[in-house]
Amino acid sequence: MADNRVVVYKGPGEVAVETIEYPKLELPEDVVSGLGIKRAAPHAVILKLVTSNICGSDQHMVRGRTTAPVGQTLGHEITGEIVEIGDDVLFHEVGDICSVPFNIACGRCRMCNEGKTGICLNVNPARAGAAYGYVDMGGWIGGQAEYVMVPFADFNLLKFPDRDQALEKILDLTMLSDIFPTGYHGAYTAGVTTGSTVYVAGAGPVGLAAAYSAQLLGAATVIVGDMNAARLEQAASFGCATADLSSGDALADIIADILGEPVVDAAVDAVGFEARGHGRDAAEQPATVLNDIMEVSRAGASLGIPGLYVTGDPGAVDDAAKQGQIGVRLGLGWAKSHTFVTGQCPVKQYNRQLMNLILADKAHIADAVNAKAISLDEAPESYAAFDQGAATKYVIDPHGMVS
Amino acid sequence: MADNRVVVYKGPGEVAVETIEYPKLELPEDVVSGLGIKRAAPHAVILKLVTSNICGSDQHMVRGRTTAPVGQTLGHEITGEIVEIGDDVLFHEVGDICSVPFNIACGRCRMCNEGKTGICLNVNPARAGAAYGYVDMGGWIGGQAEYVMVPFADFNLLKFPDRDQALEKILDLTMLSDIFPTGYHGAYTAGVTTGSTVYVAGAGPVGLAAAYSAQLLGAATVIVGDMNAARLEQAASFGCATADLSSGDALADIIADILGEPVVDAAVDAVGFEARGHGRDAAEQPATVLNDIMEVSRAGASLGIPGLYVTGDPGAVDDAAKQGQIGVRLGLGWAKSHTFVTGQCPVKQYNRQLMNLILADKAHIADAVNAKAISLDEAPESYAAFDQGAATKYVIDPHGMVS
Amino acid sequence: MADNRVVVYKGPGEVAVETIEYPKLELPEDVVSGLGIKRAAPHAVILKLVTSNICGSDQHMVRGRTTAPVGQTLGHEITGEIVEIGDDVLFHEVGDICSVPFNIACGRCRMCNEGKTGICLNVNPARAGAAYGYVDMGGWIGGQAEYVMVPFADFNLLKFPDRDQALEKILDLTMLSDIFPTGYHGAYTAGVTTGSTVYVAGAGPVGLAAAYSAQLLGAATVIVGDMNAARLEQAASFGCATADLSSGDALADIIADILGEPVVDAAVDAVGFEARGHGRDAAEQPATVLNDIMEVSRAGASLGIPGLYVTGDPGAVDDAAKQGQIGVRLGLGWAKSHTFVTGQCPVKQYNRQLMNLILADKAHIADAVNAKAISLDEAPESYAAFDQGAATKYVIDPHGMVS
Amino acid sequence: MADNRVVVYKGPGEVAVETIEYPKLELPEDVVSGLGIKRAAPHAVILKLVTSNICGSDQHMVRGRTTAPVGQTLGHEITGEIVEIGDDVLFHEVGDICSVPFNIACGRCRMCNEGKTGICLNVNPARAGAAYGYVDMGGWIGGQAEYVMVPFADFNLLKFPDRDQALEKILDLTMLSDIFPTGYHGAYTAGVTTGSTVYVAGAGPVGLAAAYSAQLLGAATVIVGDMNAARLEQAASFGCATADLSSGDALADIIADILGEPVVDAAVDAVGFEARGHGRDAAEQPATVLNDIMEVSRAGASLGIPGLYVTGDPGAVDDAAKQGQIGVRLGLGWAKSHTFVTGQCPVKQYNRQLMNLILADKAHIADAVNAKAISLDEAPESYAAFDQGAATKYVIDPHGMVS
Repeated sequence: MADNRVVVYKGPGEVAVETIEYPKLELPEDVVSGLGIKRAAPHAVILKLVTSNICGSDQHMVRGRTTAPVGQTLGHEITGEIVEIGDDVLFHEVGDICSVPFNIACGRCRMCNEGKTGICLNVNPARAGAAYGYVDMGGWIGGQAEYVMVPFADFNLLKFPDRDQALEKILDLTMLSDIFPTGYHGAYTAGVTTGSTVYVAGAGPVGLAAAYSAQLLGAATVIVGDMNAARLEQAASFGCATADLSSGDALADIIADILGEPVVDAAVDAVGFEARGHGRDAAEQPATVLNDIMEVSRAGASLGIPGLYVTGDPGAVDDAAKQGQIGVRLGLGWAKSHTFVTGQCPVKQYNRQLMNLILADKAHIADAVNAKAISLDEAPESYAAFDQGAATKYVIDPHGMVS
Repeated sequence: MADNRVVVYKGPGEVAVETIEYPKLELPEDVVSGLGIKRAAPHAVILKLVTSNICGSDQHMVRGRTTAPVGQTLGHEITGEIVEIGDDVLFHEVGDICSVPFNIACGRCRMCNEGKTGICLNVNPARAGAAYGYVDMGGWIGGQAEYVMVPFADFNLLKFPDRDQALEKILDLTMLSDIFPTGYHGAYTAGVTTGSTVYVAGAGPVGLAAAYSAQLLGAATVIVGDMNAARLEQAASFGCATADLSSGDALADIIADILGEPVVDAAVDAVGFEARGHGRDAAEQPATVLNDIMEVSRAGASLGIPGLYVTGDPGAVDDAAKQGQIGVRLGLGWAKSHTFVTGQCPVKQYNRQLMNLILADKAHIADAVNAKAISLDEAPESYAAFDQGAATKYVIDPHGMVS
Repeated sequence: MADNRVVVYKGPGEVAVETIEYPKLELPEDVVSGLGIKRAAPHAVILKLVTSNICGSDQHMVRGRTTAPVGQTLGHEITGEIVEIGDDVLFHEVGDICSVPFNIACGRCRMCNEGKTGICLNVNPARAGAAYGYVDMGGWIGGQAEYVMVPFADFNLLKFPDRDQALEKILDLTMLSDIFPTGYHGAYTAGVTTGSTVYVAGAGPVGLAAAYSAQLLGAATVIVGDMNAARLEQAASFGCATADLSSGDALADIIADILGEPVVDAAVDAVGFEARGHGRDAAEQPATVLNDIMEVSRAGASLGIPGLYVTGDPGAVDDAAKQGQIGVRLGLGWAKSHTFVTGQCPVKQYNRQLMNLILADKAHIADAVNAKAISLDEAPESYAAFDQGAATKYVIDPHGMVS
Repeated sequence: MADNRVVVYKGPGEVAVETIEYPKLELPEDVVSGLGIKRAAPHAVILKLVTSNICGSDQHMVRGRTTAPVGQTLGHEITGEIVEIGDDVLFHEVGDICSVPFNIACGRCRMCNEGKTGICLNVNPARAGAAYGYVDMGGWIGGQAEYVMVPFADFNLLKFPDRDQALEKILDLTMLSDIFPTGYHGAYTAGVTTGSTVYVAGAGPVGLAAAYSAQLLGAATVIVGDMNAARLEQAASFGCATADLSSGDALADIIADILGEPVVDAAVDAVGFEARGHGRDAAEQPATVLNDIMEVSRAGASLGIPGLYVTGDPGAVDDAAKQGQIGVRLGLGWAKSHTFVTGQCPVKQYNRQLMNLILADKAHIADAVNAKAISLDEAPESYAAFDQGAATKYVIDPHGMVS
């Protein structure tokens, strides 16, 4: 048990599985020195990974669109079994199978007290908020691995009540660490409720999860837009209407064809800053999706924006965008009294209730996002397939525990 | 009583008082033909103006920054006495003195039902929302006049319970038609509450009203930023700290000097699209204020944006801005999980409770914004003085009712 | 067209269909004289009834549990076609088919402005709130009739967008006037959301609508309790678990058998003051249901109480209850930090979104409550059947428009 | 440092200061065995008391109205200096001066995650929620003492940023542990906001704190009712209107005299189950205050109920009340669509923002409640004086740190 294998970023377009040190019950050096707190972590546990998913936001690093250094460990969508436990972990025990929110949070600061675990003040010296295996997010080791250390475990872990049941539904439950709550957050903060009409921009896993969540929240009609035919088909598979943005038709017209009016009650941006214009050969236009959803949302709407926007983007199309400045038609939103809700999903606000729904057999998110289990060694090729637009959510199963 | 005198836009930099027809209980032609509804307005009243204030948003038209035609009547901050009443006005009577929300609303549509009277669906064929005396806002006659017609009067009017008390406190009560609720909306939607630290960008009347409202909402410290010394002095007069943006010091540093940390809990943009960069000779930079308030607001903050952003701006500094597209550092806000609340203040959501506070002698908004009564004929010179940065809120008193 | 036939209360246990005057566009005398407002109602319409449902709350009158006088007209669950229209009805026209919220509201008072249409201040001199055909509720003529007058029509009416579609789905849409929103309000105010476990006390139509609404809101499990086997079977027909309160088993034990714990996340009282103790021959105990739901709800829960409690009950079991004073175990709720949400459902807050869901074919409330169309002349026998516990929601179809 | 002196309940009407063991970093036996968790508490600190206030709810025990055993240690309003710190306390250090919420909470359970720290699931085997020095609340040692152990310290403690400033304002800051947040919670959950009219039942320290908080929340007028002239005078000292309930006048009439109408927008029950009827010699009537506030609150109001109601009351006036069942006029509240918010204040939701207001010199709660510092040995006589109705909030200063 002296080693640990983990997925590592090796440069633009390249990842590999490498061996690193087995995790300890200690905080990362960045956090210890940056915040001046104790290294020993009696509040932590070591998890043996049950599953760890590849996320669209990992791709920003792998595409070289961030300042991630070669050697950056990856993986923040973690489900695992406790194999070692600190002295101050009181409400969990070895053998528990748990979901881990991708946002690392202390449970003790003002933000955590308010439920805003995506912007915890005590886990990243550089800014509010942290995550496992991500550049600029506190230096925490990634969880596309065999083992991972989870701090503040009583706060961060969501225990599945029954081990056998958990393993049986693991492809659904593994989505609780990020994309199911993130999609739900997008739909929820967009104000989706009973009877809403909804537009979701983007049919990647988060967009599909947002669309599925919109249905759970009672939407009358959910429309998903993308330029990728396979992903649109995936959206259609669970009852969504689709908008093919490669068609050249105006989005408002497509919506009007479906709903009889060119606007929806609620809209979600599940794309973020790597957005492209419409049409087959559209170039990158970072504010396209934002401007779209302002246009097709009703006056008074709230816009849910789980899609990532960055403070700096070395690979951006122009100088302004390199500094995170993008051309937003803010006046359009202002004239419609829109509210814009941005930022990382605070996973803990939603994961328990979504777990309950999965366990009651009322949510089938794995089917919605087309989950597929792979081995740790298949991670590199799956990163590549995902980047090429596969309508698949890859779930790494490092110990062969997924049946 | 066959005539009515009203302030009229005569071209960039010029207004005049002209005589127009006395108002009728009828909807404007734009609304009748555009929406296909009855012209006769048994739901309306004619008001004799008690007061009508000059608003910063009037200046956008007068400066030629909009498509307002020559001849546009002006005035949307209306307080008046009922002198004529339609058959379907049941809960008001001739002689009542009332405040009129600047946003015209029907009280019968889905938006009004939800309290979103700033985006009523039944008063403007061009878009959601209307106002008196404003370009693109439905063609309603302005109220910087002797008389004005107010539709849907039972819904729109806020009656002052006692005539004598109303006239005694009229310089406070006149602010209920727009800037007091608008400022309050900015502070409220920024999440200001007991103990908050607050930054208000802009010390014009709306900024001052936002700062004053932040105090009413229980703020621990309110900081107001501007480049106009007289307006900053006005903010200081009721206990605000000030940030002199002409000084060349970084805003975050100024805030840190005051609070001991470079961030506030809540921030309000009371400037809008005609924002300038910092420093004495700064040029227009329409997203400056937005980018500022993202920078100096705590992670997790909500940003109240009552300052106007437009869908098109013929006088803008560049082509993008002419189409309402401005360079927002959205990634900065996203990293901090900011929420942006935009749009016109729905005055009815706040005017009753603010009236109650004024009548209980617990709010002195006229002093906070330095209200000054003028005659109708003094309107043109007051427009000019206001445009030159006078730290004064001009209150037109067409019938000499203000003592 | 000079006459109108309507269901009338004739004394305890007895109703009849009688002929009264055809309605006029006038307010009722009680309202005119009590509030001192104009009798003429240019804001009103006359509806030809499409459907009008018998409600459980009608039974309180018919059982003699109220001070309703002989001759009281009945019926507040109204769906109809506009056949006559006042001068100030601008946004509806003759031929529209509309749902009418049972709570009459002016749309012009402070309560209506806040969306609290169940306690409108301008429609009942005796207290806040009014309804059609109900004792102490303003003297408005009932709608279990051929025709009925609806005041403040632009505010009160919910128009169905397509006439043919409306008639096709009329047995679902007819539930929008009361029980669907009322049940939804119970579930919503109990805080039911994605993943909740829910207990609904009472399997009458409102209880069934609450249970169905809890499912729409995303509940993981819904348990419905009653002593009537047929009604429990109805609840089971759409996927609810059931608690047979005639069994003598403790409710907490029944819940524990279903959920594995003796508490739920959210509970709804869909019974009200005519509650009985548990077990086959239980006597009336007006606070039983309230005390039950405190016992079986988790700490921190909100309790939705759409079930009616009265200010006076001439037929009550003891002197205290005759004055509306009942033995509540308030300390139990206090120890659990419960919130109690009482009062009439403000139908307008929910009816539009529920209509949208029905029209999108995603809500089948008629099946859930076992709707059955009857003629106006069958009303008396249906009142009797309903009082005897028929698991049926009776829908009067006075003009044979329901296919 | 081997001993600790603490106030102890010695039987009805009697308290004494006794010597007990110096606290350890260990959980109490009840919690360890009842919940099956680790005894060692690396998450805990030992505080040297700076101040510890006597609370009205202590009186319930001292009057013999609970099942508190002789020997029960007392004191849950704790402010102290950290003198010893566990290994897993990361964000506090020895020497910090901190306020301690009276509700003990783990920071790790579902309720704490939702901010509901008054009903934490991990600190009391008997029920949700715990407190220091209170019967049935988990067996935690009281803090009217020289030293006290505080568990889950990073979560529970609110650190004052500056030691000198803290000691200077200590009589205000000491109120953050209970009554200031509790009063604020009452006003806040009653929906008090800008311009509200408010009735607070009870002019004891919590009532005064509720009234003061209502002012902070922007109330137009606050009326406080009691039968104790000295306490009413205290309420008047900071600008409240008063209702002398010993006068025999009807409360609604007193309110009408003050406001011009017999109802308020919001009401707070700061009395609880030991309520008495009105008039000089009124007997105990546990539901009097609840029924009062329903009567004098506007339709649509929310009722804040921080006053304690119990699940059992051995000293109650009748058998029903002994079991916590009291005669509530629920139908009156239902007819007005009232919402009832009950339970312990979750102190952490409010203490930080109230601290900020105190430190900004904008809240003077010590004056409002008439705080008076006493030595630990003066505690017994102060209990007696408080029980006899002294309009004083007693603040124990065990180490002579209050100047």
